[in-house]
Amino acid sequence: MTLKLYVDSLHGSPYAMSVFVTLKEKGLPFELETIDLEAGHNLAQPYRDLALTARVPALVHDGFVLTESSAISEYLDEVFPAPEYHAVYPRNSQRRAQARQIQAWLRSDLMPIRAERSTMSVFYGQATGPLSAEARAAADKLIRAADRLVDGPNLFTRWCIADTDLALMLNRLIMNGDEVPQKLKDYAAGQWQRDPVQSWLKLLKTQN
Amino acid sequence: MTLKLYVDSLHGSPYAMSVFVTLKEKGLPFELETIDLEAGHNLAQPYRDLALTARVPALVHDGFVLTESSAISEYLDEVFPAPEYHAVYPRNSQRRAQARQIQAWLRSDLMPIRAERSTMSVFYGQATGPLSAEARAAADKLIRAADRLVDGPNLFTRWCIADTDLALMLNRLIMNGDEVPQKLKDYAAGQWQRDPVQSWLKLLKTQN
Ligand SMILES: [Ca+2]
Ligand SMILES: [Ca+2]
Ligand SMILES: [Ca+2]
Ligand SMILES: [Ca+2]
Repeated sequence: MTLKLYVDSLHGSPYAMSVFVTLKEKGLPFELETIDLEAGHNLAQPYRDLALTARVPALVHDGFVLTESSAISEYLDEVFPAPEYHAVYPRNSQRRAQARQIQAWLRSDLMPIRAERSTMSVFYGQATGPLSAEARAAADKLIRAADRLVDGPNLFTRWCIADTDLALMLNRLIMNGDEVPQKLKDYAAGQWQRDPVQSWLKLLKTQN
Repeated sequence: MTLKLYVDSLHGSPYAMSVFVTLKEKGLPFELETIDLEAGHNLAQPYRDLALTARVPALVHDGFVLTESSAISEYLDEVFPAPEYHAVYPRNSQRRAQARQIQAWLRSDLMPIRAERSTMSVFYGQATGPLSAEARAAADKLIRAADRLVDGPNLFTRWCIADTDLALMLNRLIMNGDEVPQKLKDYAAGQWQRDPVQSWLKLLKTQN
């Protein structure tokens, strides 16, 4: 069995991190390959032919190629299921639905936060300016939703991959000094301390 | 058992249509409720408190509220499974992963197509101008991916909800007269003829 994960060479993709965390949480051995997005290597051969969407991350599992981080994590959770491997989605249908809701939402909304609080500021401390009115509104929306969801160290009884995704989105604000309630700061800080996230952050330092 | 689906009052959300199609394909009875996005009713009470993301669609199943169309369709496929109900995702793990990949991609990429070829032009024939260079590049990307995926009436052996989503994205181009290969035109036209899609289009005419 072989698993290969393609990530961007700056390790700036939050979605690449998400799949990296899934693989690490499951304890699966995998090879890491980098694609230089700045040089447009994702849009050129051979990556363009390999990856349907020409985006990172992409997973190759014994020749089966898959893009889109949420689809990849779902796939890994099905093919390498609990109890042999650590589950990355809740077992209960409603909780699992809520985890998927959060993942889908974070990938398709809150664009002004993603633009003005890039992962370069989260991972590398790149400087940012004050939030625009649109980004402030998006931040308010994120905080309102997160405040409804969070009441402890994890969203649900056990950790799931939506926790990592939500913590990263909150950290776009927190690590830039934007106002975030303490409860959410504690939640994000706790998620950030998990070994797989720390492995990702360590990778940033060694590879760049 | 009660199911209620919230959609936008113009019925312009492709994601609302997607869940509507899932419910119809499964033959589930449901109540349809409209939210006036133009008046900002999604951002106001009571919808804002009901729906975590303040977006449409939202599903309420016996008091359980869920947003994000892909999460809703997955939930419905789990709670109302085959063979009693028509499956909306493939049974095979790799095919199911590919369906999820397509859904996630169509919801998070190809933004210039979505902006310049809105569903208003698909559903209501609203006039559009020529594609910008960015939208043309996104169209090329869409067509290249769709050309790899499509080789018959459905993406996989049987219809799945990703077929409806992909057909809608292709129809943004096709119905505006943009160049699309005949194979993909045939595929989209076939998908458009399915009863649930036709029910949605009929709804547009009666309610607006
Ligand atoms: Ca580089
Ligand atoms: Ca909780
Ligand atoms: Ca209206
Ligand atoms: Ca096929």
